[in-house]
Amino acid sequence: MTNSLLCVGLDSDFKKLPEKFKSVQFPQFEFNKWIIEETHEYVGSYKPNTAFYEARGEQGWKELTMTVQYIKKNYPDIFVIADAKRADIGSTNEGYVTAIFDTLGADAITVHPYLGQEALQPFLARKDKTSIILCRTSNPGAGEIQDLLVQSDSSNHTTIRALSEAKPLWWHVAKKVSTQWNINNNCMLVVGATYPEEMKQIRDLVGDMPILVPGVGAQGGSVEEVMKAGLNSQKAGLYISSSRGIIFAENPRAEAKKLFEEIESYR
Amino acid sequence: MTNSLLCVGLDSDFKKLPEKFKSVQFPQFEFNKWIIEETHEYVGSYKPNTAFYEARGEQGWKELTMTVQYIKKNYPDIFVIADAKRADIGSTNEGYVTAIFDTLGADAITVHPYLGQEALQPFLARKDKTSIILCRTSNPGAGEIQDLLVQSDSSNHTTIRALSEAKPLWWHVAKKVSTQWNINNNCMLVVGATYPEEMKQIRDLVGDMPILVPGVGAQGGSVEEVMKAGLNSQKAGLYISSSRGIIFAENPRAEAKKLFEEIESYR
Repeated sequence: MTNSLLCVGLDSDFKKLPEKFKSVQFPQFEFNKWIIEETHEYVGSYKPNTAFYEARGEQGWKELTMTVQYIKKNYPDIFVIADAKRADIGSTNEGYVTAIFDTLGADAITVHPYLGQEALQPFLARKDKTSIILCRTSNPGAGEIQDLLVQSDSSNHTTIRALSEAKPLWWHVAKKVSTQWNINNNCMLVVGATYPEEMKQIRDLVGDMPILVPGVGAQGGSVEEVMKAGLNSQKAGLYISSSRGIIFAENPRAEAKKLFEEIESYR
Repeated sequence: MTNSLLCVGLDSDFKKLPEKFKSVQFPQFEFNKWIIEETHEYVGSYKPNTAFYEARGEQGWKELTMTVQYIKKNYPDIFVIADAKRADIGSTNEGYVTAIFDTLGADAITVHPYLGQEALQPFLARKDKTSIILCRTSNPGAGEIQDLLVQSDSSNHTTIRALSEAKPLWWHVAKKVSTQWNINNNCMLVVGATYPEEMKQIRDLVGDMPILVPGVGAQGGSVEEVMKAGLNSQKAGLYISSSRGIIFAENPRAEAKKLFEEIESYR
């Protein structure tokens, strides 16, 4: 359902799969196929996290690829995000661009901002694909680096701001992405549901830019707070992602429907 | 050669392989095997970058795994670094730990610092493996984020430093890793050869901690400057990595020998 803000995270850790899937030829793929069939009518995007497939080596990569191809073939309007959290120097990122956008066939990838725009250029240059830059991550310790107060911006060395004007690193990342990195209008940000106050400030800063929001469900983020802080002027612009809370629920379909309806109730 | 500071980057981009390798069953593996046989007597570590293998999907992962296993079987004293530049939330990093340390069998992985120590804990907790944290990367645009001047540290909110005491983000990363993240004495940092001034400051800050140094060769970093700025008190502590400059040279063995001898001449 292209209008749904619900993103289902296909974090299909082999160890956590129901027993009946563990013994089939392609356990992660068969499990994902089942989840997709159960949930697709409530879903705007799927987000497989590459870590859980790489843990099984080449076999996992095969099943990840089968999963993405299954979605694109059967539900071509559903957006597929490879939650890969990559980022290397520019010439190396060309390899990841091929891997994630072409070989795997995902519509979008999550990337770290640490190497800067110049390094990310191979991702950003792909106008047909979306780069989702980590801004404020959902984990409890996100602030250790992301809350560091930055007093001046390297792109403008001459302006030393007053102490009181310092902003945290995540603020600078949001600002840079929205004003400098997004020239092809193909950027999004990651902002965890567990940080609604930061979400509000980031929404104010980036206009209608879409935001991927992990952290509802197992991580404890509140849908109500996310919706109030993060909706854009179109009452959209959020990809609210739940992974374990849906795919490993007793009834994934019922959980997806429930979360979808909760999200809709705040639109 | 365990005493060598030379690291050879196995950035074995399929498109750049010599024609004779492109048509064999396992092109990246066969190429790597040739490079390893040609260079191992000068090498302390090999560093395959995962991007170039992922670009070929499951086949690439298979050949990456074959490469790591070949090194560990034939040259068990040579250190193998998976240059994967990963980092996710803690529970997801468990997947990468399994993928890189256990399934792939590498000795070390490169990781982004952006999510903080709490998220990296699954890597850091593996006392038998090494976590190599990006500090100052080798790319020309590294400063956009890494040079942002930080006036106070989130782990000590009450101390607002004077403007003049602000330090760049890379400085804070080096400080945090050396004083807080390295409790198992299994951390290293990435510092590009293209930034010798930063290298000197980081060496002063982190004591004898080993540093992985990409950026000599194709990227233009100077071995002399790196050695003068980066050697630790044991006249070691550097893993100086050249990738394209060696593996795609006319004579990889001669290039490895030359770089090894250049490095040794400054010890």
